[in-house]
Amino acid sequence: METKGKFIVIEGPDGAGKTTQAQKLCELFEQKRINYLYTREPGGTDVGNEIRKILLDFKGDINPITETILYSAARAQLIQEVIKPKLNAGVNVIADRYVFSSIVYQGLGLGVEENIVAEINKIATENLLPDYTFYLDLDIESSLGRITGKKDRIEQRGLEYFKKVKEGYISLSKKYPIITIDGNRSKEDVFKDIAGHMGLL
Amino acid sequence: METKGKFIVIEGPDGAGKTTQAQKLCELFEQKRINYLYTREPGGTDVGNEIRKILLDFKGDINPITETILYSAARAQLIQEVIKPKLNAGVNVIADRYVFSSIVYQGLGLGVEENIVAEINKIATENLLPDYTFYLDLDIESSLGRITGKKDRIEQRGLEYFKKVKEGYISLSKKYPIITIDGNRSKEDVFKDIAGHMGLL
Repeated sequence: METKGKFIVIEGPDGAGKTTQAQKLCELFEQKRINYLYTREPGGTDVGNEIRKILLDFKGDINPITETILYSAARAQLIQEVIKPKLNAGVNVIADRYVFSSIVYQGLGLGVEENIVAEINKIATENLLPDYTFYLDLDIESSLGRITGKKDRIEQRGLEYFKKVKEGYISLSKKYPIITIDGNRSKEDVFKDIAGHMGLL
Repeated sequence: METKGKFIVIEGPDGAGKTTQAQKLCELFEQKRINYLYTREPGGTDVGNEIRKILLDFKGDINPITETILYSAARAQLIQEVIKPKLNAGVNVIADRYVFSSIVYQGLGLGVEENIVAEINKIATENLLPDYTFYLDLDIESSLGRITGKKDRIEQRGLEYFKKVKEGYISLSKKYPIITIDGNRSKEDVFKDIAGHMGLL
């Protein structure tokens, strides 16, 4: 009988180093010959990538509740088409963002009620919970400074918004099983913490 | 003080004559110099029209729950950007499809749990309920026969699916305040019923 894969979520503001850490985790899984899959949000499926284009590039008005629902639509497809089948086949899934991003970015950031964001996402994910959620905690100025290239619709929201995002993550980390990782260090030191928490060192 | 506008929803399968009846209602409002606005789903806003393209034209896989959530995203934007402000300004809104379409097409048609479809839509619409819901009841064969042009992603679903859609509408009309209109008659006779129910004759 196949063991279920572990569902590992990496959270944090834009520029916190999520992708770098996810890559390092992928490399470690490769070295150890452990099956894994990397996914990022929004997107990760064909229709999810269409939804991603709207969320990140659309120029007109998107209401906060519409934005919340659109993120959950992309997430629902990713769960059904990719994450659940892979976990059931024993593959570890490394997800760059998950439900906490919605609670923080749309809920605490845009003012959509937290329980409403949670309820939509409970439906969208069939309440699939991660085995590990790592939150990369970083000074907002440092993380915003790391964003390179043209900023997308969300990244354009400015300092005040991202302060709420950071406060949101800190507030959630006190209520939910979230492992806070000090991101103000070298990427090697940050990764040692992550791998250590997973018993991979 | 301005009186709130009436929220009038026309429901029924594709080809049932919803657009024709909505047009006749628009004409009657014009004759009577009553303010009105016509909206159709999915769409009716800029971002809603982007979501509409995915829902009606996308060629790849869309999971039933994702489809349900996408319809509710377009609806949320329509409610916030158009319907609520218009109703509050005293304008009557004639909506071609609303929440019952989702319960029937995605719930009873695709097998998404009815209470889940209802819950998502309660959030998306902030539980805004119509003043009138007219369901145009028609033989499935007749309504499918009336669809002209290239069939979209939903219209392509075939007879068995549309039988479930019709059964779904009939079942809902027994539980909710829905006015069933016999659509197997001339458009003039159908419209007399609708206008009569609204006290407009």
